[in-house]
Amino acid sequence: MPISEFSIIERFSQRASHCRPDVRLGIGDDGAVVAVPSGMELVVSMDTIVEGVHFLLGTEPRLLGYKALAVNLSDLAAMGAEPAWVTMALTLPESDSQWIEDFADGFFSLADQYSLALIGGDITQGPLTVTVQVHGFVPAGAALQRAGAKVGDHIAVTGTLGDAGMGLQMAKIRGAPLTDDNRYVINRWQCPEPRIGAGVALRGIATSCIDISDGLLGDLGHVLKISGVGASIIVDRIPLSDEYKRLSEELYANDTEKYYRFPLTAGDDYELCFTVPDSARARLAKVLDLIGVQYTVIGMIQEGSGVSCVRENGKAYEPHGSGYQHFVEE
Amino acid sequence: MPISEFSIIERFSQRASHCRPDVRLGIGDDGAVVAVPSGMELVVSMDTIVEGVHFLLGTEPRLLGYKALAVNLSDLAAMGAEPAWVTMALTLPESDSQWIEDFADGFFSLADQYSLALIGGDITQGPLTVTVQVHGFVPAGAALQRAGAKVGDHIAVTGTLGDAGMGLQMAKIRGAPLTDDNRYVINRWQCPEPRIGAGVALRGIATSCIDISDGLLGDLGHVLKISGVGASIIVDRIPLSDEYKRLSEELYANDTEKYYRFPLTAGDDYELCFTVPDSARARLAKVLDLIGVQYTVIGMIQEGSGVSCVRENGKAYEPHGSGYQHFVEE
Repeated sequence: MPISEFSIIERFSQRASHCRPDVRLGIGDDGAVVAVPSGMELVVSMDTIVEGVHFLLGTEPRLLGYKALAVNLSDLAAMGAEPAWVTMALTLPESDSQWIEDFADGFFSLADQYSLALIGGDITQGPLTVTVQVHGFVPAGAALQRAGAKVGDHIAVTGTLGDAGMGLQMAKIRGAPLTDDNRYVINRWQCPEPRIGAGVALRGIATSCIDISDGLLGDLGHVLKISGVGASIIVDRIPLSDEYKRLSEELYANDTEKYYRFPLTAGDDYELCFTVPDSARARLAKVLDLIGVQYTVIGMIQEGSGVSCVRENGKAYEPHGSGYQHFVEE
Repeated sequence: MPISEFSIIERFSQRASHCRPDVRLGIGDDGAVVAVPSGMELVVSMDTIVEGVHFLLGTEPRLLGYKALAVNLSDLAAMGAEPAWVTMALTLPESDSQWIEDFADGFFSLADQYSLALIGGDITQGPLTVTVQVHGFVPAGAALQRAGAKVGDHIAVTGTLGDAGMGLQMAKIRGAPLTDDNRYVINRWQCPEPRIGAGVALRGIATSCIDISDGLLGDLGHVLKISGVGASIIVDRIPLSDEYKRLSEELYANDTEKYYRFPLTAGDDYELCFTVPDSARARLAKVLDLIGVQYTVIGMIQEGSGVSCVRENGKAYEPHGSGYQHFVEE
């Protein structure tokens, strides 16, 4: 059933009403009015997802609503910020009531987890595009940044890598059997969990941090470039899920390059990649253990530039590809 | 010449570097880090414009860059906020270097006027869509709102109305002669001037305020609904530019309904419509005179609901249409 622009806004605002005292005026005026708590700085991040580019045509609206927010929260996680408010610009080809309801279900399932208040946005007609901006708090001066990695720092990642890349590939294969392993990796691709808790825990510990949205090599590359350093990573140490291992062994048993391709270069994992000095490793273990977040040290920051990949046996490893960029031929 | 996503970001960030001490970390990380000055609240507003919906196919990129920002600054004006930071999500069908340069020229011509810092955003490939979020400051508790119009308040508007509606109509007529009058109204439609100074001046004076983006009747209607009041406006008092009058007389000499149609119902003027108690009229005159902004009282808030239009001679006037809505048949 088609509904009007104002009805859509009405629906979203009804679900947006978290009682956050820092929201002085929410949806329904020319702008929202909010207050940043004293001593805190504001971190903002904006991401757009476009149908046919960032998600497949015909993606379930619930998954879309979830993911549009998740990828943005992942950026707050990478900055060590606590989520507070969100705005959303939704461009829709048509105003289908059920579609909007399902989209909102996915969006608020995640927003509610973080008491995130939807404070504004825009609804327009056009090709399906979702732009979300998230707003979070960090104590003044405490934001994690890409710049700051030092020679000798350990390089670590949360969770496991490559699942989302494998999941996307599985989702694209028509008639692929829905085994538990397939379901797992597809879910990891569709519903990434932003590492908010880990980001907050890493304040004062990590010397640099980024979320892996475009692939480990590409994203770590950004950290290295801006920090003016290089890195060496041991590909065998990259944490892989059992599901990924089984699927990858089945597909690429004898092809090491392909086996590590997704963990190294596929985007969408939304795990954190961060650096810590040796002196902070005990604290790191303690704080991440406390919140139950798995992490793995995969390499070390060194002088120079760029990433060198080696195998556990010391042999050099030459990966193919780096990370996703718009407007660039693969 | 096509350029990469990272080159586009690089170009924007080079032009974005205003030395604002409240920007702790600008473009180039997972998020920006900003600080709201003590005692201030933050006002945010987000608007999307879509090719073929909000602007004509083939619109000059310079005009597009200007307008995408102008419509958002107009929302800050309506809240009485001083602009500080802006984020932008730009979805482009292709990465044409000249197009991006021209778009940036338009965008920064306005941003620079207000020392507005571009602190982040996203560049993606897809159908041409621009989402901008602006961020501004108001002293705590001082934001102008739609709610607050009181029975007996005067209703006033800045500038002149109907120009943009007439401009759009003129721009759509192929081969229309480019007379000075035509140029004037087309420019008013293409390059609206956000009423930032007036908005700030109206703090503590206006009891309610909104910007006229969807048409006077529609936008004033929002104020009335949320304030729980009605209004009476005298259509003859609506301020019209000489250019509008000449064009409208030529086209609609004997058709009063059409003569007032654009001023009453056309969007895109981006003037402010606000209410003031009688006791504040002297202060109003003083502050707006000081900054050289013309304003006109066009009616009064009364009990009830909705807008009644009357002619100067006291006769009722029945307008056609109300304001623009997406997903609604006209």
